[in-house]
Amino acid sequence: MLATLLVWCPDRAGLVAEVAQFLFVHGGNIVDAEQHTDSERGVFFQRVVFELDGFDLSRAEIPGAIEALAQSMGFDHALHFSDERPRMAIFMSREPHCTYDLLARWRVGELAADIPLVVSNHPDHADVAEHFGVEFVHLPVTPDTKLAQEKVALDLLAEHDVDVVVLARYMQILSPHFVERYQNRIINIHHSFLPAFVGARPYHQAHERGVKIVGVTAHYVTEDLDAGPILAQDVVDVSHRDTVEDLVRKGRDLEKVVLARAVRAHLEHRVLVYENKTVVFS
Amino acid sequence: MLATLLVWCPDRAGLVAEVAQFLFVHGGNIVDAEQHTDSERGVFFQRVVFELDGFDLSRAEIPGAIEALAQSMGFDHALHFSDERPRMAIFMSREPHCTYDLLARWRVGELAADIPLVVSNHPDHADVAEHFGVEFVHLPVTPDTKLAQEKVALDLLAEHDVDVVVLARYMQILSPHFVERYQNRIINIHHSFLPAFVGARPYHQAHERGVKIVGVTAHYVTEDLDAGPILAQDVVDVSHRDTVEDLVRKGRDLEKVVLARAVRAHLEHRVLVYENKTVVFS
Amino acid sequence: MLATLLVWCPDRAGLVAEVAQFLFVHGGNIVDAEQHTDSERGVFFQRVVFELDGFDLSRAEIPGAIEALAQSMGFDHALHFSDERPRMAIFMSREPHCTYDLLARWRVGELAADIPLVVSNHPDHADVAEHFGVEFVHLPVTPDTKLAQEKVALDLLAEHDVDVVVLARYMQILSPHFVERYQNRIINIHHSFLPAFVGARPYHQAHERGVKIVGVTAHYVTEDLDAGPILAQDVVDVSHRDTVEDLVRKGRDLEKVVLARAVRAHLEHRVLVYENKTVVFS
Amino acid sequence: MLATLLVWCPDRAGLVAEVAQFLFVHGGNIVDAEQHTDSERGVFFQRVVFELDGFDLSRAEIPGAIEALAQSMGFDHALHFSDERPRMAIFMSREPHCTYDLLARWRVGELAADIPLVVSNHPDHADVAEHFGVEFVHLPVTPDTKLAQEKVALDLLAEHDVDVVVLARYMQILSPHFVERYQNRIINIHHSFLPAFVGARPYHQAHERGVKIVGVTAHYVTEDLDAGPILAQDVVDVSHRDTVEDLVRKGRDLEKVVLARAVRAHLEHRVLVYENKTVVFS
Repeated sequence: MLATLLVWCPDRAGLVAEVAQFLFVHGGNIVDAEQHTDSERGVFFQRVVFELDGFDLSRAEIPGAIEALAQSMGFDHALHFSDERPRMAIFMSREPHCTYDLLARWRVGELAADIPLVVSNHPDHADVAEHFGVEFVHLPVTPDTKLAQEKVALDLLAEHDVDVVVLARYMQILSPHFVERYQNRIINIHHSFLPAFVGARPYHQAHERGVKIVGVTAHYVTEDLDAGPILAQDVVDVSHRDTVEDLVRKGRDLEKVVLARAVRAHLEHRVLVYENKTVVFS
Repeated sequence: MLATLLVWCPDRAGLVAEVAQFLFVHGGNIVDAEQHTDSERGVFFQRVVFELDGFDLSRAEIPGAIEALAQSMGFDHALHFSDERPRMAIFMSREPHCTYDLLARWRVGELAADIPLVVSNHPDHADVAEHFGVEFVHLPVTPDTKLAQEKVALDLLAEHDVDVVVLARYMQILSPHFVERYQNRIINIHHSFLPAFVGARPYHQAHERGVKIVGVTAHYVTEDLDAGPILAQDVVDVSHRDTVEDLVRKGRDLEKVVLARAVRAHLEHRVLVYENKTVVFS
Repeated sequence: MLATLLVWCPDRAGLVAEVAQFLFVHGGNIVDAEQHTDSERGVFFQRVVFELDGFDLSRAEIPGAIEALAQSMGFDHALHFSDERPRMAIFMSREPHCTYDLLARWRVGELAADIPLVVSNHPDHADVAEHFGVEFVHLPVTPDTKLAQEKVALDLLAEHDVDVVVLARYMQILSPHFVERYQNRIINIHHSFLPAFVGARPYHQAHERGVKIVGVTAHYVTEDLDAGPILAQDVVDVSHRDTVEDLVRKGRDLEKVVLARAVRAHLEHRVLVYENKTVVFS
Repeated sequence: MLATLLVWCPDRAGLVAEVAQFLFVHGGNIVDAEQHTDSERGVFFQRVVFELDGFDLSRAEIPGAIEALAQSMGFDHALHFSDERPRMAIFMSREPHCTYDLLARWRVGELAADIPLVVSNHPDHADVAEHFGVEFVHLPVTPDTKLAQEKVALDLLAEHDVDVVVLARYMQILSPHFVERYQNRIINIHHSFLPAFVGARPYHQAHERGVKIVGVTAHYVTEDLDAGPILAQDVVDVSHRDTVEDLVRKGRDLEKVVLARAVRAHLEHRVLVYENKTVVFS
């Protein structure tokens, strides 16, 4: 079994040495380690993955020991064990391509998560969730029922113990209340190269502007529409020959790949958020 | 010798047949041809390159014959002969990388143009122009002298018979008067993936926003800052590890390549502009 | 309804004019046209898409008229009508990602084909085909049964009137007899950037060589292993951090996208093959 | 001033802790650190950059102290100080684009090196070196004079105290003797995506094969032609429209960027070589 320790704090000398020393004296074998210093803002970030096999603290003792270390050294931290699989819900609307892609990746073992729930405001793709053995809940949304349905959704997420919500081309804007409940745990795929083309119909906007490249952006959802911390982006060449429909089609390929990349980074605890930006360790 | 004919007009049946027929009956050998129909707006565009060798009209007769064809068929057109090399001026400021890149390409024969003139608002790189055998003119600009210096520049362009002006990281905004004189003939390289990060210090803006990709955009200059028809774009991956200085450095590589791609397209008469967008034939 | 005419022949003057003239006099509205001349080998290629609506020949008369034109002008051709949907079979083995991807694209209307059949040498993914409403046939293959099973497969293809076979990570090598029966109609995805790493375990080969980029190649299958005409390729960056498993995972994303791109080009009659190379119109 | 320490050895627990502890107790401020474990082969690699300012060992004492640490811990290492600028020679032939690119980067401060020497087997571009203030030596090579001229070149390199040799499209194959003298210190740019298209005229080979992407590879030169450790690669899309000349032109852009990327990585001591592969820290 592996443990993943994330550390962040104001930068100062000795941080790497102290964490490494702690793990070494307890017999921890470091499998992967990466650190980053934002020297402009003086912030230190680290991700260390170590094996529990051979560690001289039991699994039950580790959180307390690391908490003590964190207090003495003055860092913030998060600790994850590899047998605690994050629980993930997918929200979708009419377009199923991202949902298919995520669930097919899940089936072949690419996503280290449990996926107990697919929520949609349209009934069209119940059979997709069913095919992959996932519960499908249809929650139609109108301006009038939106908040009530969000409450239902939040209850479902709580009931299923969901850690992370993936908006797989879910075409509803979540309320601030919902967003706050899952801060830095809601991942959206926006079909433009943010910050270009915020808001509705970005492929139409891109076509109108005559760009030669279109892109997509996976980001954590915040209260400001399409302005949350960016997790991943990718682009594809287009030309005057491409209609809006071509952009939509080419964009779908990007949406699938970029959303999956962001979801994997989140599930593997490779992301740290600060000042509306992300550190995504490789 | 080759002739390049550009045609654009409202779309209707028979256009391709009529142009092809005209060239065929006169013995023209079509070397390259490409057409595009914007079916949304109903506009037809064509570029045909044909050999004069074997053509039964003399070079002097061709423009009149094509003008007559254009009138009878109702299309707009432009006609270029391969021995009329466009004359190009480069405007630069403190950063020489794009100027070096363009002039080195020119030296190895990549750019089918004459380059009689480099203009700069800084004296730093006179030796660069000189090394490539190009006249260098230093025109320092202050808010007070700007219009007067632009007049000097316009006189220089007229005197050197310049057809196209390339802003190779020229850090001054041209006046509407200047822009109008060289409509769709001033090519700028903007160091962001437009329409993201319009205006000053785009790499700083990109770093602040935490994007995972940065880009650059070559476009024709219009009166609206950074809003002209886009000719070419390209991007490069960045990460949390990249400082603003890294973005600047990575961006320079893009700026060189994308500006050169746009310049080549313009010089080879592969660009048509309409509704603030471009058709760039391949 | 649309007709797509593909033309290829030794290059000579007048070809574009004659085809365009033929379509024009019969009232054909050209929706899309692209031509290419391989000037080194003197071969001309053209693809013209025109509307039948308004054409003064009936659909039944068109093939004969074009055959007559082809004979008089000396070109080879192929003619397709948009209501004749190609029929496509998918061959798969243990890895389902390409099959999922193709069938999900098919469900949202991205592939203009009928897909009556999935064949696999393993029984694992019968439910995938079933979910999409496609017949699944399990044809286990051993060295001894290989030819017999191929005969069964060929019978199935004939029975289902299949036009094109897509090898979606099918891990068996087809016999020359099979290949010949579906010349330029079997599309394979090879998980390397051909011609690098021909043969088995290309990701292992790539990892061993220490490349910084890996790629995949979609190609028509010929008798020479991995040496057929290339339809599409794409690549992704890798580094010393990537294990073979990482290459495999990154490669899967490429395989899906590149195979789908090749399949779409084939289905839309945008591919011409000559001298073991392809012209792929855009 | 900064020091860069490279460490490599068989992997074992405690390595990171010991190096970090050593630097911490001496007051070293770690500016950048990256490590990598090849778990398949059990090899550990690390690169640490620390400030000398505040370090309690003098610059003269550091090498000995680190040597002692290395002996006690059993690691191999290399140590570089930021005021020791590597000295770099450029070898070129008829095509000047890589040389221009490197020297223009050098002029704007992108390359942390001294460049005292350009060697060429052709006299054509003496003025380029001269423009950048670098000595140009013309060493024409025939089969008969090859070894003698290499001896002259080696003497020049010794005389100018050259650390690294960059083959900027130098079209001569160096002898094993020369290669051995500068093991892992000769960087070549090969104009194909290795291992595809080894040897002469790779763009012709690529065109003949009908690939849809071409690439270039920067690598250390070894005795086996085009088979040395790969430092960097990049690719560009091509199509049936591209002639060999187009591939050559598109390839030039790649060659410049990829060679410069490899040279920067080498100069910044970010490269470690083992088993004919590289670790290139970011």
